[in-house]
Amino acid sequence: MTSNTVGRRGPARRSWLGGLRDAFDVLVKSSPSRFAILVFATLILITTALLSLPLARAGSGNGGTPLYDAFFTAVSTICVTGLTTVDMATHWSPFGNTIIFIGMNVGGMGVLTLASILGLVVSRRLGLRAKLMAASDTNPSRVHAGPVSERQAVRLGEVGGLLVTVAVSTLAIEAVVMIGMMPSVLAKGYDFGLSLWYSAYYAVSAFTNTGFNPNPLGPVEFFDDYWFQSLMMLAVFLGSLGFPVIFALLRTWKSPRRWGVHVKLTLTTTIALWVAGAVAFLVLEYNNPKTYGGLSFVKTFYEAFFMSTMTRSGGFSTIEMADLYGSSLLVTDMLMFVGGGSASTAGGIKVTTLAVLFLAAYAEARGAPAMEAFGRRIPRDILRLAVSVVLWGATIVAVSTVIITQITKSALDFVLFDVISAFATCGLSTGLTESLPPEGKYVMAATMFMGRVGTVTLAAALAAAQKRQLFRRPEERPIVG
Amino acid sequence: MTSNTVGRRGPARRSWLGGLRDAFDVLVKSSPSRFAILVFATLILITTALLSLPLARAGSGNGGTPLYDAFFTAVSTICVTGLTTVDMATHWSPFGNTIIFIGMNVGGMGVLTLASILGLVVSRRLGLRAKLMAASDTNPSRVHAGPVSERQAVRLGEVGGLLVTVAVSTLAIEAVVMIGMMPSVLAKGYDFGLSLWYSAYYAVSAFTNTGFNPNPLGPVEFFDDYWFQSLMMLAVFLGSLGFPVIFALLRTWKSPRRWGVHVKLTLTTTIALWVAGAVAFLVLEYNNPKTYGGLSFVKTFYEAFFMSTMTRSGGFSTIEMADLYGSSLLVTDMLMFVGGGSASTAGGIKVTTLAVLFLAAYAEARGAPAMEAFGRRIPRDILRLAVSVVLWGATIVAVSTVIITQITKSALDFVLFDVISAFATCGLSTGLTESLPPEGKYVMAATMFMGRVGTVTLAAALAAAQKRQLFRRPEERPIVG
Ligand SMILES: [K+]
Ligand SMILES: [K+]
Repeated sequence: MTSNTVGRRGPARRSWLGGLRDAFDVLVKSSPSRFAILVFATLILITTALLSLPLARAGSGNGGTPLYDAFFTAVSTICVTGLTTVDMATHWSPFGNTIIFIGMNVGGMGVLTLASILGLVVSRRLGLRAKLMAASDTNPSRVHAGPVSERQAVRLGEVGGLLVTVAVSTLAIEAVVMIGMMPSVLAKGYDFGLSLWYSAYYAVSAFTNTGFNPNPLGPVEFFDDYWFQSLMMLAVFLGSLGFPVIFALLRTWKSPRRWGVHVKLTLTTTIALWVAGAVAFLVLEYNNPKTYGGLSFVKTFYEAFFMSTMTRSGGFSTIEMADLYGSSLLVTDMLMFVGGGSASTAGGIKVTTLAVLFLAAYAEARGAPAMEAFGRRIPRDILRLAVSVVLWGATIVAVSTVIITQITKSALDFVLFDVISAFATCGLSTGLTESLPPEGKYVMAATMFMGRVGTVTLAAALAAAQKRQLFRRPEERPIVG
Repeated sequence: MTSNTVGRRGPARRSWLGGLRDAFDVLVKSSPSRFAILVFATLILITTALLSLPLARAGSGNGGTPLYDAFFTAVSTICVTGLTTVDMATHWSPFGNTIIFIGMNVGGMGVLTLASILGLVVSRRLGLRAKLMAASDTNPSRVHAGPVSERQAVRLGEVGGLLVTVAVSTLAIEAVVMIGMMPSVLAKGYDFGLSLWYSAYYAVSAFTNTGFNPNPLGPVEFFDDYWFQSLMMLAVFLGSLGFPVIFALLRTWKSPRRWGVHVKLTLTTTIALWVAGAVAFLVLEYNNPKTYGGLSFVKTFYEAFFMSTMTRSGGFSTIEMADLYGSSLLVTDMLMFVGGGSASTAGGIKVTTLAVLFLAAYAEARGAPAMEAFGRRIPRDILRLAVSVVLWGATIVAVSTVIITQITKSALDFVLFDVISAFATCGLSTGLTESLPPEGKYVMAATMFMGRVGTVTLAAALAAAQKRQLFRRPEERPIVG
């Protein structure tokens, strides 16, 4: 199986490292999805083991964390979901918090890197960086089109290069956000060390769209601080766009016309959902005494946008989700299910997937032969991929909701909310998740894993399966609708 | 606008009837969807007016039925939904019941006829009967394929012929079911006249997939009668398949190989959903003391299949929906949303629409260039139509659920159930609908109307909009999933 790879460098020079490198290449090339699943599963198992240690738990004499809570937290950390079954601010020791801090970064960067590697493996001709850049560029000749029949060799060196790009960009953005947050945390009376820790934790938690809180009160402690909340929103927003869009914004922010259709589609849909969500929360909750009822109009307006931002995948909240009206919970469900941008740390079916569905319906209504957006024709096969992703998501959410409802007999408002939050790695919770029995926590963990790894690998797995067919069957048309 | 039509017969021969015929032709041809909406709206307004009369209400001195209840019942009758805000067995006078009895038949036949007319208007070459038959036949050359650019003239005479075919078939099936039901009703001690009325009402209510009950106890009165319940299931099942499938079964039941892809796809998906639904109800409810907990295994098994049948669009129930576990309510939601066959009296997005989505995902997973089913290639543009229908349905359900939840602050389990039941014209209810305030009843009525008329007209409206484009835009590929 490795003959052609080995042949290139000659069998005599084959070292232990070379063998590992070859095995890696073979795995990535032969089944990129299995590779991604393996990487995530390994990271989760290591994190679970470390978090189970008594050393990871705060206080002495408590013993270790129960396996289901350690496992749940590990999945939630590596999948950057942000759902919790223990109090993140008080349950873990400094060692445990360090594991979680590193886990969020590894998980966030892992998703970004894997999404790009998988995207590369199933495409042709482009180098890794070029691939990442390509989606941010408008030159159609540089963008892959049509079914893929060959696979691109991915060398460990290339992956390393990509990891460095992603890591440096991620850490740079996180550092800027952290520095910006420092004055706000210091102003709350924390000493310099704790302020640094809280700021760093919040910056990482926000940009990776995790949503864990390091302080006992959570973001509510900064409810009066527009600056701090705005930084959270900015970090979550950037993280949820994905690097193809971030790079386009950084490189060509002066000339939006040069942005690729992916960038324009992601930004348009994200902003449309952001505004629609905020308006919905404003209309539905303005007179709810438990949420925005007692706030000024400006504050209600601002918090509605904060809430809408966090449904993208951030998962921070300044109000109790359980206090929302059922109507707002349902609106949140829909926004969470859609999630953020492709190749980002956000989850869900992704904004471009939703956009493609609506572009298809719009093209159908106009009777146009092809989907179009921003003066570009969208290839037809994208619709089939989008439908597959939505069916996958809907199936996971449906099965998980039925199981959790049957186990707990809880109200659908809360079960659907927490399940979609898990699937879309959002992390907002009505409080149901932490009250689940162990078997329910395992179901939720499986939902988080399938929501995270599934949506990242599914598109790649499906695209990689493209093959030619040598005969055409007779065509026949069923009636639909 | 009518020049070519008039020209054919010469202006001198133009009579009053001819003018009406021409106006009818123009309306059907120029906007078949608007024509369908007009027909349904007119039928609903007439029924509302008649049901509002004091004459239509049982008992004397009660005055008329409130407008919102008369309107709701009219919509529910004409749209063959079966949701109620009054007790159907006791609220109406014989006159009111006659209106409803006729309304169910008119509504059921109206849907069947309109679906076929609309199908014809947007297709070419085929006569009305041929068109109806075509979908039941396997000969691909007789089936329309590809985008439609011309429109077919539909003459009043042709519509009349179709109406006769549909009406005769409908009344024949209903008569057989009615005769079969008579012994069961007589056995309950009702006199001959009332037994005839109940049997006729149940036969019509079942075959048109309405779900109204004429007797105060409803189908529960026949809970020990396997024969009666089986007849209900058969009538609902046949009605939900649609005439293209019924005709195929009647004409070529001995040679299933000759069935068209539409027939095979409808039957396969319907049976798969039927069995899956029954298994789900069996597993989730077997130990629910309020539903199947106290029943024997055989009875539980049978009732699970009865329940599963009724989610297709029948809407009869032998248990209280509000007693189901939340998990079963959610399973029912999904089954109702899918609904029955195309060009049938059932509602929902239709089984073939769901099948096309899964065929697309399956083709994507296999990397096949085209969707395939039963050795036939399914045209690509069908997927776009299916996606449009699902988006339409999801949007109606979402908006309606948010509004009803906000108005009533009821639990999502119940609101989602009744809203999907309304959209999919199923008629099962948790009891929420009849407790709604007037404005909630109007929202539900609108949901029923859009679910019924929308899904019938949407496909036609979209298919009719097909047009050619003379230029091709450059292609560019966004990232999805
Ligand atoms: K999150
Ligand atoms: K019904």
